[in-house]
Amino acid sequence: MRLDFSVAVHSLLYLDQNRDRRIASRELAQSLSLNPVMIRNILSLLHKNGYVEGSVGKNGGYRLKKVLDQCNVGELYDLTIPPTISYARFITGDTKELDQSETGEISSNIKETLTDLFTLADEDYRQFYHQFTLADLKKDITNHGYFINKTRENKK
Amino acid sequence: MRLDFSVAVHSLLYLDQNRDRRIASRELAQSLSLNPVMIRNILSLLHKNGYVEGSVGKNGGYRLKKVLDQCNVGELYDLTIPPTISYARFITGDTKELDQSETGEISSNIKETLTDLFTLADEDYRQFYHQFTLADLKKDITNHGYFINKTRENKK
Repeated sequence: MRLDFSVAVHSLLYLDQNRDRRIASRELAQSLSLNPVMIRNILSLLHKNGYVEGSVGKNGGYRLKKVLDQCNVGELYDLTIPPTISYARFITGDTKELDQSETGEISSNIKETLTDLFTLADEDYRQFYHQFTLADLKKDITNHGYFINKTRENKK
Repeated sequence: MRLDFSVAVHSLLYLDQNRDRRIASRELAQSLSLNPVMIRNILSLLHKNGYVEGSVGKNGGYRLKKVLDQCNVGELYDLTIPPTISYARFITGDTKELDQSETGEISSNIKETLTDLFTLADEDYRQFYHQFTLADLKKDITNHGYFINKTRENKK
């Protein structure tokens, strides 16, 4: 899952570097050393959401429609890694109790409580990515340490 | 992995509800409907880290050593879900370039940049849990909505 996000980011940066021409999904796949099917799925998602224009197929190819500072990193994260709808498999509870009177309340309610906790933590986590655009990401690529410094500044 | 955190939280709350007696890992396992081996591994971790006292074996059992507001939810999260050391498998890059002059910089450096981004996001994520103690968690169990309200207040 998380790879989808990295692939989207990497693809958009590659298209930005090559704004003068259309890029075929095969070229992107070779450049990222990834399966062309995966690249095509992600390009299709980016296409649907207005990040790129173009088409697949012979003589096909994609071009970036936005400038980098219009591409929010958090929006790309939300697009490629949808929020987990259910945390049920991480959560204990809902069990037959040995002694309902003593322990019933924890087991019956811990699922809702932990779901809230994980959901709120996940919202907070996504908010972190929304601070940045691909222009920031590119700054860090050309001048490594930019993210670390910017995050520390924001915390002051 | 995330289940370990839920099991630790659930176990400590169960021990808190039963402070008057030692709880055998088998009883906990039955109450949480989980494999006793998993419970024992987590109790052993909690024992090593000073949350519980007691022993395994016949006539063994555990007792909570702390009060709930001494048990930080973030510390339990860090203990049961260690930080991901490498995000390498989520990251593209480090590839043979078609055209080094044009695209070399992105592919050679994107790994470091995304590692920083994921690491900083993960630190931020963990910080979220550190706001709370098990006393808060218990408040949400008895009065559901406490976490949502508290998080919204903190954001104001």
